[in-house]
Amino acid sequence: MTDRVVNFSPGPAVLPLEVLTQARDDLLALPGIGISPLEISHRSSWFDGVLAETEANLRRLLSLPDNYRVLFMQGGARLQFSLIPLNLLRGRTQPADYLVTGTWSQMAVPEARKEGQVRVVYDGQGAQFSRLPRPDEYFVGSDAAYAYYTSNETIQGVQFLSEPVAGDVPLICDASSDFLCRPLPMEKYALVYACAQKNLGPAGVTIVILRDDLLGRCADGLHTVLSYKQCAKEKSLLNTPPVFAVYIVLLVTRWLLDRVGGLAAMEALNRQKANLLYTLIDQSQGFYQGHAEPGSRSLMNVTFRLPDEATQTAFLAGARERGLAELKGHRSVGGIRASIYNAMPLEGVWALADYLREFQVYSRR
Amino acid sequence: MTDRVVNFSPGPAVLPLEVLTQARDDLLALPGIGISPLEISHRSSWFDGVLAETEANLRRLLSLPDNYRVLFMQGGARLQFSLIPLNLLRGRTQPADYLVTGTWSQMAVPEARKEGQVRVVYDGQGAQFSRLPRPDEYFVGSDAAYAYYTSNETIQGVQFLSEPVAGDVPLICDASSDFLCRPLPMEKYALVYACAQKNLGPAGVTIVILRDDLLGRCADGLHTVLSYKQCAKEKSLLNTPPVFAVYIVLLVTRWLLDRVGGLAAMEALNRQKANLLYTLIDQSQGFYQGHAEPGSRSLMNVTFRLPDEATQTAFLAGARERGLAELKGHRSVGGIRASIYNAMPLEGVWALADYLREFQVYSRR
Repeated sequence: MTDRVVNFSPGPAVLPLEVLTQARDDLLALPGIGISPLEISHRSSWFDGVLAETEANLRRLLSLPDNYRVLFMQGGARLQFSLIPLNLLRGRTQPADYLVTGTWSQMAVPEARKEGQVRVVYDGQGAQFSRLPRPDEYFVGSDAAYAYYTSNETIQGVQFLSEPVAGDVPLICDASSDFLCRPLPMEKYALVYACAQKNLGPAGVTIVILRDDLLGRCADGLHTVLSYKQCAKEKSLLNTPPVFAVYIVLLVTRWLLDRVGGLAAMEALNRQKANLLYTLIDQSQGFYQGHAEPGSRSLMNVTFRLPDEATQTAFLAGARERGLAELKGHRSVGGIRASIYNAMPLEGVWALADYLREFQVYSRR
Repeated sequence: MTDRVVNFSPGPAVLPLEVLTQARDDLLALPGIGISPLEISHRSSWFDGVLAETEANLRRLLSLPDNYRVLFMQGGARLQFSLIPLNLLRGRTQPADYLVTGTWSQMAVPEARKEGQVRVVYDGQGAQFSRLPRPDEYFVGSDAAYAYYTSNETIQGVQFLSEPVAGDVPLICDASSDFLCRPLPMEKYALVYACAQKNLGPAGVTIVILRDDLLGRCADGLHTVLSYKQCAKEKSLLNTPPVFAVYIVLLVTRWLLDRVGGLAAMEALNRQKANLLYTLIDQSQGFYQGHAEPGSRSLMNVTFRLPDEATQTAFLAGARERGLAELKGHRSVGGIRASIYNAMPLEGVWALADYLREFQVYSRR
């Protein structure tokens, strides 16, 4: 086995070693079946079982009420930017209200505008998306078709740890980069979606959880593969799902249930990991400058800068030498980003914390 | 290692053992990188290399002219049913001409009708899709925006082994279930697409090859993720591609080049495998009744029936006992279907041929 580095990639991102080991062991042939999960039919009883158990595990992890459907789709968050307005805004006179708190919620707006009226009820760009709005800084109209927000902005590292106020308006959440990082009060949501490649599995599958009544609101005449109603009707088997990716999601949900012990335990661990890094940043006397304001900080993506570009370059080079990989910030904003999703072990964060301490001491000499 | 069965699944389908072994060896960590291909960033230099080599291998295998683009997309053939008319029929007064030779081409028609006028210039349903049209049985109008056909109908087992006549009209082909089974005269095509899960890799990635000038014809104002122009502009990195699935496609193209020796050699092997089964069917004195007429037979999916349902059930049970799996025909048509894609080894077909002979003798006793 080749040594593994500590992978701080923002996505695709680190997976639990137990998941990878199981996938490797099954890769040539599933025991008792004799077919690789890369080759097996989506109509096989094995895959029926994978779909059913993955859904059951998600229901258990989230205490999901019965009146919600779980869909497995392709196309990533980007396709959902379009499917949400295609299904829920097209042909309506009502506007949709969007909270823009970072790059990803900002990117969802122009797609929605293709299907109807959009009100940007909060725009954090003026503050470089360094903080979330206070409740008095935005207002979701009761006439809105839906209210849309992004629970965790991967690039800027700001995260909602409770739901924005939307009254009775259907609340829609892009939870791509923090889904399953903590228990979610699912009854507050009309629709939550998450691409897999942060907390759930490999790139190529997206989980969409939506309340039954939303299906009745979906636009008619859509292309079959773009319709939530059709995907729900066919129970995610409208066409061939990404079988292997769904199977990895199954293994991740098993890991969350059996190894981690559920989402409350996951949240406690995530808080411990994030606090370790934020405390170091706060105690660095300005050597490490966090991007997000303390009340808006993400448990998943810790973003910060060093005093200058040369120091940052040296920091990244030294990190790579220690096997601390993928710490460079997004090309659009620069700086450093440590993505510490569910599967990042505490030991990985310890190693980064040690390096942060030592690098500061070394740089100040 | 668990014993592998001979997997005649129509898709997801058998992959070369060399490909699976390589994927297994890399699964915990890529050598020298220390990150699993399930976890690695799509912005990594490793994945840049994967995309570049996969495209180069496809170009080499197909002798692809320089004025064609290669896109890696998600959503399977079903999404292409919609993207083709969304991009190339929407807003036009010209009709699109569709050849309907089986279930899959038939399913593409209603999606196209959502965007414009469709002429079904051939409909083989009357003959249970048991044969392809003769050139005098259809006519593609010179006014058509494009002509669309499905090169291999997986469910019925009929395959075009040369292109239909479309004059100067842009020819579009769903090659999902026979792509790379033989050399293709790519300069005859405007667009060819194939989902991976038959001849290319696992479910979850779709290859779209299109001629440059088509990008200029694409409709404006489409949702970004649904636009060929945008996907081409971003070189398949508009959003996170299904990294692991693309990596398996890379391994399959390497296998085709290095082990098989290219598409001419692949075609020779495919013809040998198919001939073995069709010859047995033809010599069975009607015990095995082929569905496709001899001139239309597929090299990929060999479809046939046995004298009655009880015999068919016994046939399938006996096959499973010998490790010959997934031979049941599609639920919409019944019968037997042996899918013998590129990666089905000759030995697998020999095993099935032996069983066909013995089962007939046994049944006649």
